[in-house]
Amino acid sequence: MRTVEWDSTKNCIRMIDQRLLPGRFVQVEFTDYQQAANSIRDMVVRGAPAIGATAAFALALAARQSKADSINAFKNEIESASRVILNARPTAVNLAWAVSRLLTKMQESKAQDPGQIKEVLLLEAQRIAEEDIETNLRMAEHGAKLIDDGDTIIHHCNTGALATVDWGTALGVIRLAHEQGKRVRVLVDETRPRLQGARLTAWELERYGIPYDIISDNAAGYFLRNGAVQKVFFGADRIAANGDVANKIGTYMLSLAAFDNHVPAFCVAPVSTIDYELANGSLIPIEERSMDEVLNIQAGGEAIAPKGATARNPAFDVTPNRLIRGIVTEKCVVYPPFEKGLKEIHKL
Amino acid sequence: MRTVEWDSTKNCIRMIDQRLLPGRFVQVEFTDYQQAANSIRDMVVRGAPAIGATAAFALALAARQSKADSINAFKNEIESASRVILNARPTAVNLAWAVSRLLTKMQESKAQDPGQIKEVLLLEAQRIAEEDIETNLRMAEHGAKLIDDGDTIIHHCNTGALATVDWGTALGVIRLAHEQGKRVRVLVDETRPRLQGARLTAWELERYGIPYDIISDNAAGYFLRNGAVQKVFFGADRIAANGDVANKIGTYMLSLAAFDNHVPAFCVAPVSTIDYELANGSLIPIEERSMDEVLNIQAGGEAIAPKGATARNPAFDVTPNRLIRGIVTEKCVVYPPFEKGLKEIHKL
Repeated sequence: MRTVEWDSTKNCIRMIDQRLLPGRFVQVEFTDYQQAANSIRDMVVRGAPAIGATAAFALALAARQSKADSINAFKNEIESASRVILNARPTAVNLAWAVSRLLTKMQESKAQDPGQIKEVLLLEAQRIAEEDIETNLRMAEHGAKLIDDGDTIIHHCNTGALATVDWGTALGVIRLAHEQGKRVRVLVDETRPRLQGARLTAWELERYGIPYDIISDNAAGYFLRNGAVQKVFFGADRIAANGDVANKIGTYMLSLAAFDNHVPAFCVAPVSTIDYELANGSLIPIEERSMDEVLNIQAGGEAIAPKGATARNPAFDVTPNRLIRGIVTEKCVVYPPFEKGLKEIHKL
Repeated sequence: MRTVEWDSTKNCIRMIDQRLLPGRFVQVEFTDYQQAANSIRDMVVRGAPAIGATAAFALALAARQSKADSINAFKNEIESASRVILNARPTAVNLAWAVSRLLTKMQESKAQDPGQIKEVLLLEAQRIAEEDIETNLRMAEHGAKLIDDGDTIIHHCNTGALATVDWGTALGVIRLAHEQGKRVRVLVDETRPRLQGARLTAWELERYGIPYDIISDNAAGYFLRNGAVQKVFFGADRIAANGDVANKIGTYMLSLAAFDNHVPAFCVAPVSTIDYELANGSLIPIEERSMDEVLNIQAGGEAIAPKGATARNPAFDVTPNRLIRGIVTEKCVVYPPFEKGLKEIHKL
């Protein structure tokens, strides 16, 4: 079962509605690319790699929906659809990366028939989804070597199968170490405000049989200071050329507390997450989402604040490279100095 | 209106049930000291100074309930009741401090009539409550000088009128600065798992007309890194002789992020919070509360984790003194080196 996939019988995108987990497991189908873009914005699907694959399928869907019969009109429609999809969420670079891969395929194609290009785009989207799984398995192999038997690991947000097409990034590393027979225990940051840790990561760990305890995000420092934690793992939504990492809000404070206690913090992300055009993390656009996510527990849920209360809700923060021990990619584990190391894997 | 008070008409302790705020404002009355001790354990009342006053009233109530007619039997009953009250919560030293003040009064009294000692104990409890308010106002005067016009301040947990008999500690400082005409804005850490910030501090700030925004605890680092914050303020449940501060879970990560960004973090607490018998913070007992507080939003509330999930729930952490710029007490603001400074104010 995949987080997001193309159904070639029904010609639709099918995805797990992650807003309903862990209470209910529901799959939803989209036959309209704008609805698919909305599903990214509304976080039916989340996680940088899963967003990338969904964006690719959404653009393939836009192509399918096009009624243009001239190649130029068709290409204009696709470029316009790509802008709608790109606007869904600003921080994860995988979204732009996936859209750009499809647009490049379209531009390089010599086909003069929209129908042929529709096929090309769908194939490329499917390739992105397949590659995501392979990439995750390779990251898991590199990353699992960093985990020792008996480790207790703090994990932030959700970076598992649900954050990708399948298998996961940081959680995929932990999952492979577990499958290799290493005894691991996970302290699951609940990850306010949307609780991706308590809802999604805990749900995955239950299924994999990996022991865990959920903690409030603000309790990570307590366990790090008490010597109860050997490693910290998280994913990334965008990595700047110098190794600064934009990831789910709270990653900076977690990494800082790990650093203060000499516990190594590892980021796990595919090369597609690296934005070589941004010199450092201060240039990464940070999405601020609706204050309702902070003022209420889950959409439409119980209000926790007094009437009239306001909130701020940045969805990501930037962890400076000095706090990160290593970045696990599908090519290898990159160590400081990251600017040099990331440049080198670009050439591999 | 006071957080906790003695009603001398009904001879009962009356307190605000803080578990119901901000949704409902309800006052509850206790005529049995064991129920009053339970109200501390169950967090009907919370906040170190408020716990101290409640413990004192609870012991005065135990005295009132005693049917002993010999002075020795009476004193044995009071000492036994004091142990029940002391066991309610382990971390806040104000509880032990208040109980100890009453026991000392009893031991020093030459009265041979339990009735007279009952009066002595009630008077001492009332004195503790009155002193708490005066102490808070003096701390506010010292602390308000640290706040500049235009400051944005991150505040953790609740340290306002609700955490004390009245007025508050760290929030009392911010409140006085506001009343002095300084424009301040508060970023309110929601303070998982019990949401004292989102529920109680936001409720108080609404009443005082102080502008604020609630943030997830894990977002504090984002605002600190972006230069949006000038000061950090919090209270304390126990301060070791070297200035290490045990306070609500999350204070360590917040102070660390403040320190990493050269933003001064101030602790505001009465001298009664200083435990001169503990050399450093590693000796402070840290309460771990029920995992249900993490797995559900508020008692009996919505489950946020999958069925079968477990959690860890330390209620406090220890912030090492190196991360604290100053400790505001009713005597003065103490600056590093704290061991020396705290010793000096002990003599004042």
